[in-house]
Parts: sequence; structure tokens; C-alpha cells
Amino acid sequence: MTDAPLLLTPGPLTTTDSVKRAMLRDWGSRDPEFEALTAQVRAELLAIANAGDAYTAVPLQGSGTFAVEAMIATLVAPDDGLLVVANGAYGRRIAEICARMGLKHDVLDLPDRAPVPPARVAEALAEGRHRFVAVIHCETTSGVLNPLAEIAEVCRAAGAKMLVDAMSSFGALPCDAAETGFAALAASSNKCLQGVPGAAFVICDKSLLLRDDHRSPSLVLDLAAQDRQFSADGQWRFTPPTHVIAALAQALDELRAEGGTSARLARYTENCTQLIKGMTALGFQSVLDPATQAPIIVSFSEPAEDWFDFQQFYDRLKAEGFAIYAGKMRDRATFRVGVIGDVTPSDIAAFLDAAGRVTRAMTERH
Amino acid sequence: MTDAPLLLTPGPLTTTDSVKRAMLRDWGSRDPEFEALTAQVRAELLAIANAGDAYTAVPLQGSGTFAVEAMIATLVAPDDGLLVVANGAYGRRIAEICARMGLKHDVLDLPDRAPVPPARVAEALAEGRHRFVAVIHCETTSGVLNPLAEIAEVCRAAGAKMLVDAMSSFGALPCDAAETGFAALAASSNKCLQGVPGAAFVICDKSLLLRDDHRSPSLVLDLAAQDRQFSADGQWRFTPPTHVIAALAQALDELRAEGGTSARLARYTENCTQLIKGMTALGFQSVLDPATQAPIIVSFSEPAEDWFDFQQFYDRLKAEGFAIYAGKMRDRATFRVGVIGDVTPSDIAAFLDAAGRVTRAMTERH
Repeated sequence: MTDAPLLLTPGPLTTTDSVKRAMLRDWGSRDPEFEALTAQVRAELLAIANAGDAYTAVPLQGSGTFAVEAMIATLVAPDDGLLVVANGAYGRRIAEICARMGLKHDVLDLPDRAPVPPARVAEALAEGRHRFVAVIHCETTSGVLNPLAEIAEVCRAAGAKMLVDAMSSFGALPCDAAETGFAALAASSNKCLQGVPGAAFVICDKSLLLRDDHRSPSLVLDLAAQDRQFSADGQWRFTPPTHVIAALAQALDELRAEGGTSARLARYTENCTQLIKGMTALGFQSVLDPATQAPIIVSFSEPAEDWFDFQQFYDRLKAEGFAIYAGKMRDRATFRVGVIGDVTPSDIAAFLDAAGRVTRAMTERH
Repeated sequence: MTDAPLLLTPGPLTTTDSVKRAMLRDWGSRDPEFEALTAQVRAELLAIANAGDAYTAVPLQGSGTFAVEAMIATLVAPDDGLLVVANGAYGRRIAEICARMGLKHDVLDLPDRAPVPPARVAEALAEGRHRFVAVIHCETTSGVLNPLAEIAEVCRAAGAKMLVDAMSSFGALPCDAAETGFAALAASSNKCLQGVPGAAFVICDKSLLLRDDHRSPSLVLDLAAQDRQFSADGQWRFTPPTHVIAALAQALDELRAEGGTSARLARYTENCTQLIKGMTALGFQSVLDPATQAPIIVSFSEPAEDWFDFQQFYDRLKAEGFAIYAGKMRDRATFRVGVIGDVTPSDIAAFLDAAGRVTRAMTERH
């Protein structure tokens, strides 16, 4: 179908036709062919993370947040102590997951607009109350890139294990297991990997799945049991989203064909630079210091003038063939434009043309 | 692709090409068009259950078991008391969910081979220890149909609320809210509704979502919060499997076009009758009393003779274009053949021809 708008969002995003066509087959979920497909996807995810034999990639049904909750439910015992580093809605969501589950945790509540200062993490860990630290790699709330390698160093120095929500970064920005020594990292099929939504995964230090003093209070979110089943017979414990996994396998092939994560990052970076330049020329202001902007999604301040109305702006852009995204920052009105997915600089150029027409039409009416 | 085998399984199953083609579009998950699609699917699910205004249909990311666990996590407080009626692996799985979550529960452990005797449920409830009862409608372990209406009556008489796992029955066998007064019912997109896997749902008495003395210990599995979000703005809390939902919407259109659940049940019943007759003629024995067999999936005893080897039987049938399913009963070796999905009596006839060829080839080699 060609009437779908180009999605300039943090995902689900616009995927290639070939990724979608990979869903035109039904798979028996317990058939050896599907076991092989799952094994191939798991191996490829480990390779992208540069994760050696000490790690396992555990796919899970559901959205990215299902994988984040599963990572915490499986790895963190109620009394371990988890420091949640929050500079946006996704960090705060992890705090809510902990509160629901009744886990001992503290929240390092930081402003949405700036990257996490590693020294603040070090300070919070100095008390020695935390066996684990949870951090968001790219905070989609604002689009800010947190300094993962530096935070990893702080965790290592404090003897704390780092859990990473790399939802909107994995597949483009470096999330290197060997370099950062993360304990676990959660991400999803439908962000920078450019698959469709419906599956997520956790790349996990295997030794953490072997604890005998804790197990997940949720059966479906138990990654240790999920991993044991893959090891035993290659199968998922519960019905997998077969079509979504087939699309992910195709998307991983296409990531390799594009030249891997560095080539993908280069394309997204070009999209992002061009987007900010063009929007600035149209009079919009991006919220972040450019040095801290991840090339994933850009927050723009809503113009304070009367002519601007987000819903009308959205609807007019959609009529031009582009779907943008609402804002999510705590302290200011923003809207967001994503630069990930099957999106090229020429798509961004077309979007900027449309944004120009829409902006002129809306300001002229005033 | 045409090289996929016909899936004679309990799902994921063979879907129509038009259901799969509904996945050839990317949807913005927060776009009004997708909100409308979600609303349409939710309304249609309620209609299939003959559930009036007192009920809500809450879709959830993940497999059917995710919906079963969410139903229990959301509705059942730790001290409520849940009677788990188990005559197969799916009932026992609910017991495991309760144990993980630390819920007060008892298991009525019954043989896999026969339907649940309602009197046994009445007996267990007589002690007055249980606010909730969990029951499986069609136990896919054996393929047996449990007497839902009679069990509902027993629950009503005892003042207990009935939770139904209708995973493999919903969309074909009657699961009527008005008739049975179930408190909640969980099912999935990829069984008798003939969608693809990746989404599930719970049809729930709204009043049970309003308890203020309990909330789900899991954020992602919280159906009350999920329902509130749909009511507030029509959106999913976390990224939905957009393509899977689009396929489900198409599958629901096709269910209506087929003539609704009774027409679908008639087709499955014809498939089932023909399958058992044909397999019996080939010398195989179905395990259940025909009067208790649900027309969903049939368990056959593995022949005791030397010539039979399940893996070889499976591989040879797959080479002929058919994927069957391993057995799961506790007390005997079985294999299973499903009759649901985009499968007609002429497909069953073709399968029986293939099963005849395979059986002859395997016995002749001995």
C-alpha cells in the first residue's frame, strides 16, 4: 500500500517493503526451520553488541518495555538495590516498574534536557547501597544521548552491574558489551534495527541468569527460563510472533547489506543534521545542545506564537505524507521528529519542503 | 511464498494470504488511523463474546500466556484465593503463574484425558476459600472440551468469579459473556480468529478493573492501566504490534464474511470429523471419547509398533507439505493434528492421502 505516511517517529517506523514482505509466510513455531531462524537472529544480535561467549541474546514477545521489565524482574532480587538514573520518561518508567514489583530502589532524578553527568552517578553509588544501576542510552523523551561508556566506568569502579535500556539506540549507536561490560541490555525489533514491532530482546551476561537465590516473579517475563528453553531445544517457551521474527531476520540482513551499524549511524546522522538545519531555517528551535543530540529523534520547542497548534501542524503534515510525533518533555512544550527507519536525506528534504509549506500556510492564516 | 507447509497445529496456523497482506503497511502507533483500527478490533472482540456494556476488551502485546498472566496479575489480589482447575498443561501453567506471583491458590488436579466434572469444581468451592476460579475452555494438551456453561453455573452458585483461558476456542466455540457471566476471558489473535501471533486480549468485566485494594505487580501486564489508556485517548500504553493488529482486523473481517463463529465452527467440525475418520482408517487411534473432543486439535496415540518414530513421521509429512504437532499429554505418548486456520475439508483429504503414503512407506521399511 502506498497511502501510508512516512513515519518520522521513534518507532514503529517506516520499514522497507522487503522487510514487510518477509511476513507473507506462516511459520510453524515449533518447526526446525523457525528454530533455525530464531538461532540466526539471536547470533546476529550478539554480534551487533560485540558480545562474546559470556553473553546470551534472549528474545521476548511484546514491546521494548516488556524486555526492560523482564530484564529487571529476572536479574534483580527485591533486596539487591537498584539505582535508577532518570533524565526522561523512560528512566522514570523503570522506577515505576521497580515500585510495582516492590524492589528496593533509588531514583537519581535529573533534568530531561541534559545528558546524565557520570559524577552524579558516582556520587549516588558511593553509599554502596546498589548492586545494580539502570540507565537509558538514548532518552527518547528529549532525544539526548547519555554517555554510556563513562557511566559504565563509574559502575565498574563502584562494583555495580549496569542494566541498559538501549531501545532507541541499538543498531545505530555503539552499545558495545566488550567495551562497557554491561550486565544486560534491552532493545527492540522496531527501532534502529528497522524491523516491525512485536518483539524485543535482552542481551545478558549468562552468569546472571544462573542465580539460585532469585527468580522472576513473572512466568512470562522470566528470561532465565526463556534462555534455558532456547538452550534445550531452540524453541520459545510460549508462542513467538513468528512473522515479526521473520521480518527482523530480513531487517538484520539489510543492516549488514547497508554496511552495518556505522553506515546506519552515518545515514541517521546526515538525516539529523539536515533536519535541524532545515527546521532552524524555518524558524523552529531544537531543544538540545547539538553536542548532546542523538541522531535518532529531535525535540523542537513549540513556537509560542498564536499560529501554532500541534494538532493542526500534525494533520497538515500528515496530509503531505509525513507523520511526526508529539513531545514528552516535563518542563516545556515540544514536538518531535524522528530520523530513523527507512528514511534518507532526500526524504528529509521532502519533509522540510512540506514543513515549509505547512508553516507558511499556518502563519498566513493569522 | 508457497513453499510453507500447511500448518495442522494449535497455532500459529495457516492464515489467508489477505490476512498476511494486511501487514504490508507501516502504521504510526500514535496516529488516529491506528487508534481507529484498535477501537474497531476491540468492539469486534466484544461482539464475538456477546459481551455487553459491562465488559471491555483489552488487547495486550505478546502471546496468549501473556494475556492469561495479565488477567490474573490484574484481577486477583494475593489473598483472594484462586481455584485452578487443571486437566492439562495449560491449567498447570496457570498454577505456575500463581506460584511465581505468590498468590493464594489451590489446584484441582484432574486427569488430562477427560473433561472437567463440574461436581468436582463445586466440591472444591464448597469450602468457601476461593474468590476466583480459573478454567481452560478447550485444553489443547489433549484437545478436550471442558463444559464451560456448567462450570459457570457452579461458580455462580458458589459466588466465585470465573476466569477463562479460551485461547484455542475463542472465535469458533461459544464463549458467551451473557450466558456464562465470566469475570474475564483471555484469548489470542492467532488461534480460531485466524490472525497472526503477537497479540492477545482479555475480555473483562469492567467493574473488576476498578478495585482500589489491588493493582498489578507488573507494569506491562496491568490491564486496568491498559484499559484506562484506551479510554483516555484510544492509544496503547506501550508500542503495539501494529502489523499484527492490522492482520487481526482483516482476520475479523474474514470471520464475519465466513458467516461468523457458527460457520467457522461448522468448518472446523467437518475438518475434525473427516480427520478422525481418515486417521482411524489408517490404523491410528484418537485418544478422546468423541463426545468430549473439541473440533480444534486431535490427539492420536503413538503406535506402539517399532515402525513408528515421531520425528521421522513429522519430517516425512512435512516433505509432503504438512506440519503436524508433538503431543503433550502426561500419561501417554501422543501426537497432535490441528484442524483450525485457513484449512478446509479438501486440505484434510490431501493430508490424509499424505499420511497414508507416509504410513505405508514407514511400515514397509520394517
